[in-house]
Amino acid sequence: MTEHIQFNDSRDCLVLLDQRFLPTREDWFDCTDTKTTIYALQVMVVRGAPAIGVTAAYGCYLAAREVERMDHAQRKGTDDWKPALEAKLAELADARPTAVNLAWAVTLMRGVWAANPAASLPQLCTIWLAKAKELHAEDIEINKAMGRFGGALMNDGDTIMTHCNAGALATAGHGTALGVIRGALEMGKKVTVIANETRPFLQGARLTAYELHKDGIPVRVACDNAVGLLMKRGLVQQVVVGADRVAANGDAANKIGTFTVAVMAKRYNVPFYVAAPLSTIDRNTPTGDDIPIEDRTPDEVHYVGSTRITPEGVPVFNYAFDVTPGDELIAGIITEKGVLRPPYKESIAKVFGA
Amino acid sequence: MTEHIQFNDSRDCLVLLDQRFLPTREDWFDCTDTKTTIYALQVMVVRGAPAIGVTAAYGCYLAAREVERMDHAQRKGTDDWKPALEAKLAELADARPTAVNLAWAVTLMRGVWAANPAASLPQLCTIWLAKAKELHAEDIEINKAMGRFGGALMNDGDTIMTHCNAGALATAGHGTALGVIRGALEMGKKVTVIANETRPFLQGARLTAYELHKDGIPVRVACDNAVGLLMKRGLVQQVVVGADRVAANGDAANKIGTFTVAVMAKRYNVPFYVAAPLSTIDRNTPTGDDIPIEDRTPDEVHYVGSTRITPEGVPVFNYAFDVTPGDELIAGIITEKGVLRPPYKESIAKVFGA
Repeated sequence: MTEHIQFNDSRDCLVLLDQRFLPTREDWFDCTDTKTTIYALQVMVVRGAPAIGVTAAYGCYLAAREVERMDHAQRKGTDDWKPALEAKLAELADARPTAVNLAWAVTLMRGVWAANPAASLPQLCTIWLAKAKELHAEDIEINKAMGRFGGALMNDGDTIMTHCNAGALATAGHGTALGVIRGALEMGKKVTVIANETRPFLQGARLTAYELHKDGIPVRVACDNAVGLLMKRGLVQQVVVGADRVAANGDAANKIGTFTVAVMAKRYNVPFYVAAPLSTIDRNTPTGDDIPIEDRTPDEVHYVGSTRITPEGVPVFNYAFDVTPGDELIAGIITEKGVLRPPYKESIAKVFGA
Repeated sequence: MTEHIQFNDSRDCLVLLDQRFLPTREDWFDCTDTKTTIYALQVMVVRGAPAIGVTAAYGCYLAAREVERMDHAQRKGTDDWKPALEAKLAELADARPTAVNLAWAVTLMRGVWAANPAASLPQLCTIWLAKAKELHAEDIEINKAMGRFGGALMNDGDTIMTHCNAGALATAGHGTALGVIRGALEMGKKVTVIANETRPFLQGARLTAYELHKDGIPVRVACDNAVGLLMKRGLVQQVVVGADRVAANGDAANKIGTFTVAVMAKRYNVPFYVAAPLSTIDRNTPTGDDIPIEDRTPDEVHYVGSTRITPEGVPVFNYAFDVTPGDELIAGIITEKGVLRPPYKESIAKVFGA
């Protein structure tokens, strides 16, 4: 697959494959400053915790470049560029609430800045662009490591159910959950995929099906409602999903509906795995109950493309995530350092060396 | 709400509100013979077990009228109209596999014919049209009785989740599950409704929301994926759904996804009720495993309105129903004769007087 996150040096901008229009249209979206980057994150031109992290890292650079272009008045009458940059970074970090990788990336970039306190703004720009590119490349390597650990857990002939898109399109490339599937295939295991369509944004039907089909990996789409029937009929041997934030006790926030998939998997003794890089594990969030759940625009439910599906005047719910209790329902958390097992409070502390 | 199933005497045809285009368009569809009636059932101009039953009863009459119009050649060289009519009835009974009310209605109409063996074809037409109108009126009365029994189970202030549409639009009028909600409201209980959108055909978002909103009953639509989160947050006090077929042991086939709702309801101790008239209980089907599950056209999953949501070349699953195990997950089956309780094998045998 073409890389969906690209930094264009000659045009000095971040170019994103616009995921809102897949699979029917392959449009590209330019992020040239903080505002366009935040917009891209909020309307989900780009989504998926690791991809959000990489985008946010480039976003820090774009914020610095924007502040560089500001005149005296725009900097509120001061030549000190730091408060203006701080304000942009705070805005960026708040673009979406659930995925911890957003805050993680901004914090990491702040750390790089703190390590270079004497850097001028042009120098910081140079340092940050190099760092964003480094994180971008690292994310792909991390996914490949996760793919090897996770691929080893899959068996030849397995049908693997996934929810939402935790693929190349949700990361810098390769994918977390879909990286595990790619890992299994690279080991010569013939696995096939069931992609839950994942209402309301349809990441499964639109994105997971698109990227797997493009790469020649067998995939079949199911409505989210079919999860129970498919498991009861023995058509699912493994479930692998991504995560937007994993709490210190292993509770994992992921796309709405994931929790229900995990409950049904438990009922039929189907192993349920979460593939998440360490950057998605937030040790400052004690449990799943402490993870903020984003409440998105009702129009994502009211409309599919240009088709209105609800009557005018009827309200909807549009919570974007739910939380799967770790110790009860997650068989393993696949990271770039290996597979963590319950009790997660201990295995997570251990992997972070605490 | 306007009656969505109407027999037009002057035009001698069955007129159906075309549910494919709700809530955005209120079109009407004419059934003038067997073929148009079967088409209406198969593409879901009309759907919902009791509405299918009433439509099939009128369909028997329309089949008889069609045979009456046939010439000697069309009757395969015989003046005996009975084989031609038998063939039409068999076709009609096979239009859809899961809802038992279809077979129930055709069997009932056959019984009326058997009771009038000397009737001429014009006489049979007269007898059958009267019977179809009688069943039509009876269905509304049956729903009202169910509404009273079920309404008594609801509490003032409850939020009631429902899946698919088991409302006026799924019956001759009033509704089974939504009849229970109407019953509770008639008793002065202030209840509100969460309608699961019910992919792929979106009966919840399109039909349940439409008919409740039209009647001024507070309703909010949720994606099917939100069931777990909404229950975990304590936002659901009761679940009431319809059924397409209830087996002799209380296992209930209903719209795909119902089973998952029942599992999540059990997890959170939310009572899960099935509202089904006795005509939906099939004592010839021993258990849920014996209920045939309809596998519908993939295009219902591929498209929402004119919007294609999956990539070309990717297959889908489109099973239309799943089965909820009765004794384990169903708190009560609300019928026109009262509320049946587990163990259902016994309570069902008892209500049928066996």
